[in-house]
Amino acid sequence: MTSGFFDGIEKIQFEGADSKNSLAFRHYDPDEIVMGKRMEDHLRFAVAWWHSFAWEGGDPFGGPTFERPWHPQDDMGRARMKADIAFEMFEILGQPFFCWHDADIRPEQGNFAENLKTLEEITDYIAERMQLSGTRLLWGTANMFSHRRWMAGASTNPDPDVFAFAAATVKSCLDATQKLGGENYVLWGGREGYETLLNTDLKAEMDHMGRFLNMVVDYKHKIGFKGTILVEPKPQEPSKHQYDYDAATCIGFLRKYGLENEVKLNLEQGHAILAGHSFEHEIAVAAAEGMLGSIDMNRNDYQSGWDTDQFPNNTPEVALAYYHILKAGGFTTGGTNFDAKIRRQSLDAKDLVAAHVGGMDICARGLKAAAAMIEDGGLERALQERYSGWDTPQAASMLDSSLDEIAARVLQEDINPKPRSGRQEILENYVNRFV
Amino acid sequence: MTSGFFDGIEKIQFEGADSKNSLAFRHYDPDEIVMGKRMEDHLRFAVAWWHSFAWEGGDPFGGPTFERPWHPQDDMGRARMKADIAFEMFEILGQPFFCWHDADIRPEQGNFAENLKTLEEITDYIAERMQLSGTRLLWGTANMFSHRRWMAGASTNPDPDVFAFAAATVKSCLDATQKLGGENYVLWGGREGYETLLNTDLKAEMDHMGRFLNMVVDYKHKIGFKGTILVEPKPQEPSKHQYDYDAATCIGFLRKYGLENEVKLNLEQGHAILAGHSFEHEIAVAAAEGMLGSIDMNRNDYQSGWDTDQFPNNTPEVALAYYHILKAGGFTTGGTNFDAKIRRQSLDAKDLVAAHVGGMDICARGLKAAAAMIEDGGLERALQERYSGWDTPQAASMLDSSLDEIAARVLQEDINPKPRSGRQEILENYVNRFV
Amino acid sequence: MTSGFFDGIEKIQFEGADSKNSLAFRHYDPDEIVMGKRMEDHLRFAVAWWHSFAWEGGDPFGGPTFERPWHPQDDMGRARMKADIAFEMFEILGQPFFCWHDADIRPEQGNFAENLKTLEEITDYIAERMQLSGTRLLWGTANMFSHRRWMAGASTNPDPDVFAFAAATVKSCLDATQKLGGENYVLWGGREGYETLLNTDLKAEMDHMGRFLNMVVDYKHKIGFKGTILVEPKPQEPSKHQYDYDAATCIGFLRKYGLENEVKLNLEQGHAILAGHSFEHEIAVAAAEGMLGSIDMNRNDYQSGWDTDQFPNNTPEVALAYYHILKAGGFTTGGTNFDAKIRRQSLDAKDLVAAHVGGMDICARGLKAAAAMIEDGGLERALQERYSGWDTPQAASMLDSSLDEIAARVLQEDINPKPRSGRQEILENYVNRFV
Amino acid sequence: MTSGFFDGIEKIQFEGADSKNSLAFRHYDPDEIVMGKRMEDHLRFAVAWWHSFAWEGGDPFGGPTFERPWHPQDDMGRARMKADIAFEMFEILGQPFFCWHDADIRPEQGNFAENLKTLEEITDYIAERMQLSGTRLLWGTANMFSHRRWMAGASTNPDPDVFAFAAATVKSCLDATQKLGGENYVLWGGREGYETLLNTDLKAEMDHMGRFLNMVVDYKHKIGFKGTILVEPKPQEPSKHQYDYDAATCIGFLRKYGLENEVKLNLEQGHAILAGHSFEHEIAVAAAEGMLGSIDMNRNDYQSGWDTDQFPNNTPEVALAYYHILKAGGFTTGGTNFDAKIRRQSLDAKDLVAAHVGGMDICARGLKAAAAMIEDGGLERALQERYSGWDTPQAASMLDSSLDEIAARVLQEDINPKPRSGRQEILENYVNRFV
Repeated sequence: MTSGFFDGIEKIQFEGADSKNSLAFRHYDPDEIVMGKRMEDHLRFAVAWWHSFAWEGGDPFGGPTFERPWHPQDDMGRARMKADIAFEMFEILGQPFFCWHDADIRPEQGNFAENLKTLEEITDYIAERMQLSGTRLLWGTANMFSHRRWMAGASTNPDPDVFAFAAATVKSCLDATQKLGGENYVLWGGREGYETLLNTDLKAEMDHMGRFLNMVVDYKHKIGFKGTILVEPKPQEPSKHQYDYDAATCIGFLRKYGLENEVKLNLEQGHAILAGHSFEHEIAVAAAEGMLGSIDMNRNDYQSGWDTDQFPNNTPEVALAYYHILKAGGFTTGGTNFDAKIRRQSLDAKDLVAAHVGGMDICARGLKAAAAMIEDGGLERALQERYSGWDTPQAASMLDSSLDEIAARVLQEDINPKPRSGRQEILENYVNRFV
Repeated sequence: MTSGFFDGIEKIQFEGADSKNSLAFRHYDPDEIVMGKRMEDHLRFAVAWWHSFAWEGGDPFGGPTFERPWHPQDDMGRARMKADIAFEMFEILGQPFFCWHDADIRPEQGNFAENLKTLEEITDYIAERMQLSGTRLLWGTANMFSHRRWMAGASTNPDPDVFAFAAATVKSCLDATQKLGGENYVLWGGREGYETLLNTDLKAEMDHMGRFLNMVVDYKHKIGFKGTILVEPKPQEPSKHQYDYDAATCIGFLRKYGLENEVKLNLEQGHAILAGHSFEHEIAVAAAEGMLGSIDMNRNDYQSGWDTDQFPNNTPEVALAYYHILKAGGFTTGGTNFDAKIRRQSLDAKDLVAAHVGGMDICARGLKAAAAMIEDGGLERALQERYSGWDTPQAASMLDSSLDEIAARVLQEDINPKPRSGRQEILENYVNRFV
Repeated sequence: MTSGFFDGIEKIQFEGADSKNSLAFRHYDPDEIVMGKRMEDHLRFAVAWWHSFAWEGGDPFGGPTFERPWHPQDDMGRARMKADIAFEMFEILGQPFFCWHDADIRPEQGNFAENLKTLEEITDYIAERMQLSGTRLLWGTANMFSHRRWMAGASTNPDPDVFAFAAATVKSCLDATQKLGGENYVLWGGREGYETLLNTDLKAEMDHMGRFLNMVVDYKHKIGFKGTILVEPKPQEPSKHQYDYDAATCIGFLRKYGLENEVKLNLEQGHAILAGHSFEHEIAVAAAEGMLGSIDMNRNDYQSGWDTDQFPNNTPEVALAYYHILKAGGFTTGGTNFDAKIRRQSLDAKDLVAAHVGGMDICARGLKAAAAMIEDGGLERALQERYSGWDTPQAASMLDSSLDEIAARVLQEDINPKPRSGRQEILENYVNRFV
Repeated sequence: MTSGFFDGIEKIQFEGADSKNSLAFRHYDPDEIVMGKRMEDHLRFAVAWWHSFAWEGGDPFGGPTFERPWHPQDDMGRARMKADIAFEMFEILGQPFFCWHDADIRPEQGNFAENLKTLEEITDYIAERMQLSGTRLLWGTANMFSHRRWMAGASTNPDPDVFAFAAATVKSCLDATQKLGGENYVLWGGREGYETLLNTDLKAEMDHMGRFLNMVVDYKHKIGFKGTILVEPKPQEPSKHQYDYDAATCIGFLRKYGLENEVKLNLEQGHAILAGHSFEHEIAVAAAEGMLGSIDMNRNDYQSGWDTDQFPNNTPEVALAYYHILKAGGFTTGGTNFDAKIRRQSLDAKDLVAAHVGGMDICARGLKAAAAMIEDGGLERALQERYSGWDTPQAASMLDSSLDEIAARVLQEDINPKPRSGRQEILENYVNRFV
């Protein structure tokens, strides 16, 4: 027996590219083999509890629009109803994973003990549903930005009691993630930053955050959690500045606090855009350092300066993201989480389902295009040719020498390099053969 | 005997805030004592050879506007004339320092040997002028972005011969900087980045850049150069993406390549803005890591998306920059370089001089306001009070404990922190008492 | 007898620039004469009901932080309590005006009849308070963006019933504004735009909006409302695109629908920034067309892409805004409304008051600097000189001639204009003498 | 006999989507019938003389990279060589049109008489080449932004002699355009704006620009030019602010100066992005006013804040642009001009050709997708359904009534509209069926 919320919507089937059914997959066939692996195992899709079930449709200029029977989530009854609905949608979509913040799945109780109790109750309930459906947990996380106690930060709060509350909260969420077999644990520091430097001790706050993250890693090992710890870059919003600004900043931070081998990155398209980067840039930076963990798939409106978290809809862009993911070896514990919300005017259950179907299809198209480019090898060949000068023994020995030795050689041999074309447009055209 | 270019413009005098003379200092009095030090020794102003003497007034949509007698700089005669003009202006302004790229002071010869020869000649000539005038060199640097050989990067070029040419060039510029008693040496990597990831091996390029920078540091020690090596963050332009994106990115890079104790940052207001940061943010980040070296003072138009390099004109903003510099102990080898250019419609010699006079005055006002805030201590007291909870033994011991110990304490003591006001507007009002 | 909310905060006094009292005016002395008029009568400050009393401190990533006794505003009792608090603050600040949306002052009832009834009740109540305090209404407006009925627009909604509801709502608000002696009536179309062009009939929506605005003007005349009808430009947020994008777009719209002599603009600093303009640009554009009505004074964070609505704190920028306002003759029915909110971490009553005090002081400094520039006349003289060529009869006759006549003259007289300096830095330095 | 510059590059052939030839069309088949018209006649491609033949590869931080035999263009011999090369490329590409500025095709002579003479010479030469090749002129225009005489504007210059020079120049270019059978004449005002409001009389400048444009229209009629006069919006760069900011601003300007029936818009993707708009937004705005003239096809890097003028490479985006063009009836005198330049690292003749081939293919794919959407009719049906309420007599009569009549009806009928889904994601998914 179902809730009736999704009445009239059947389990989504793969119907192929010619289908005109807006509730069918046209490109995503979980069992299709791409580069030797099932598409489902490549993409590892997850649905996000917050956008799809917790968010009520409000924005800074308006209140809720959605009117779901489980809103507002102020008691455990509605929390369970929300979980029921979630698993009904998981059955419809058939995606293998989901993700949550504690605050998405349990009501806020106003103190830690009650939050913990309700978290345990609801995760027991969810565990049963997972057992039945086979849907797994990609990652859990603690929402340490919505309640007013976090307004000035969690681990970076000027008040050490908030640090303590944050530590207890992350412990409880990491425990819950382990209980549910989560494959990763994510930290996103929406309030770990500042509104104004005038009231901020930057150095102390970053040191506290570094210490906090070390505690999280220690605790992970203590309880034998096998998943990956991930941090998620975002430059700003809600804070004016967030310490986890972008991939490069996070990597520098991890290295400073000795965590470069313990923590990886969860990268989001929208956050990349807000930081002034393309999504593939962030992925390539993380991959170059071996710190690519997982992705939050969505899209930011290029003309808006805030986090629009829309469903992806541009295949050429998504293809480049998966190209860099595949080049880095693909996901291990990570996956493709739809950190995306339907627009607040998209009121219907069908909108919610169709948005995911469309997003999954775009990702499937992108993945297949990326795989085809890798198999064709054209980009890689172009790279090898462009950098082939570095393969010579002379180039290698130059890197072991010194400025004055090199300068002497330049003078002696009258080295005077001649530019060669970067062939950008030809490579862009090449990509367009596949997308 | 002078060139006549500055005819009618006398040495700039300090006349006080009531002066209506557009060619007088109203706030900058080099000998005024601020926090126990002469203002000149705090600010350590430098004039930039490139914007003031080499730039001809072109922009992407138009050619030269300036028609200086020493343009274009295609032979040594004009290079010397340019140097003469520069020192005439230094005498007018009385600032203690200047800065150059090799390409600003000597004509491009098309090969390294000739570039080296002309660099030696012109720096001999400049050395004589320095001797006479007492003006000193704040820093030298190599222009490895204008000539077409650098179009795909210098140390990050796909062609190892360009790496070699870059190494030889930096060696020659570091030698010249030492010869002229320069107090720092700067590297700005305008082409160290990419136009498209499609043709870029990110990891290889960053490794080459890290190796290159280590060579520079090694060579500095070899020749006994006592100045500071500085790198200069900028997110993009001319490249689509530059590896030295912002302060945090550079610091992470330096740490990765083992250079965090050898290299500091040269921070620019306009580059901060292009990277999505305030100038004081970049300064505070560098200061928190002990890597604040020097500043390029200018201003970026907030409504333009490219590097406008205007002269500073907003005292409240400049005051916050100097506040963080003073808090970090002020400049040691660094200083305030005007990496600023007059608008291309500002054709007259008087425009060039007045722009510097105005910029120096704004910085002087900013410095004095910053010093007054430091002496008053209001911001520091507010910080101490806000973070005072961290001064307790309990807070310190919490940092040494673990997630589960803290969680146990939160439960046991029912820790439930109550938010306190961040007082942002009150602190902003406080600052406005001083600017 | 007061509510106790502002306990310990006395009526703000002018204490002069040397005061260190954070709850005193240092620059705003209502009775000081500036260019022959009291400062109060120049600036015409208004407090905004929404930010200061209705907003609860939420943002897209977090819930309320403020915990005011009158929140949430879900019955008439609390609506009255809010009004009481508002007038207590008006007494403390002594500003002459306030502004409201209907939804700020009355609870939302879910249908028009009840909304109308409560609006009439609360405006009766407010009218009594106005009588006692002498505070006047600068403008009223209808909030047609927060309730879910407006999610797809008000006058531009695809559903004509929403147009009807909007028409009824504006009628009720215009009636209420007239009842309270309001000096203007404002329309801001936060949802008059689109989220996606895919579901939008741009032409139909703009025609409906033009027709709607004509109805408003007709009704104004019918009831004899003497105030000014104002529209408020904003480029986006909440909508992806808003039809009232910026001053130039609004002016074009007004002209198209025959309203250029009936409607003026209410310009906001933060909206200017979001549209890619400086605030003085928007003012200058409106002034050039004789359509400058009123201003919403605030400031947008230059590094944030959303509407931060902070209190102004930069005198040089504010001075340029008032310079263009004074040049245009100053306000008639318009004024300076603080469409600004304290940060969500600024929890205390003192923060709310101090923010307004600081904002009023910044505006007072800006106004005095602007007046001094006008009285000195330096900018105006520079303009006259720069354009003096256009004062000749020959130039005037050229404007009456034709391309071929002019071309003939250029050939015959070999007209070959020589550029003259634009003197930008000298003018910027000039401004800095006054700010 | 050819120049040899394109040696090894044959005339581009249509080979179909499976072709791996980087110098073949995969989607653009000029003769393919789309919606009853040849693809060539829909798209009306033009090559831009400036980017492809005049630009030398410089940027704000670097000099020329291209080393073409016809650079620099300082005499008529090289101007002719450039024309020869251009027509060789036109033959290779087979596109029907090209475009020029006067300054692209003739050397700058420093005075009007000589500029006129060389313009006449070179256009005679070009006329012969056109005769032979069959390639036609889409539009001509005057470059009134590169030479230093234009630094402070052309028709908006403070110096009336510059206005005169501009008038003579436009006359000469309009004459030349007519001589060559041009189908449009374009005005882009790169310097018609300001660097600082401090030295700008906004009103006078806009009035002069309005008068100038009227003169152009008058002259067009006088000489019987049958083409369309187009203005081209761009928000900034080179100027800080340009008066032709975006489509809405231009339309308002045209209406103010009585030109709304005489002048249409030439819209550019990159300029749309710089103004904060999507390209399809600008097209839809112009179409809604009946002022859509022609397009400059290119793409702006979304992470760069300046005019990157890259070749288009994103089919989904281009498809939406052509969707709105087709909805508006398609081009009449306008077309698709590649106002796009290869990257400065793209040194080879092959890069130049391949960039155009790729761009033409992307446009062809976009056009076919757009046509398929129009023929399928799904978007149009969704629009009609969404706005169907407005088709009733009641809705029409409401638009003829008044606020108080509507308010009475709302009260009487208790009109209380219920929101309906905007279906954004479903429509986005629909579009993805076609791209």
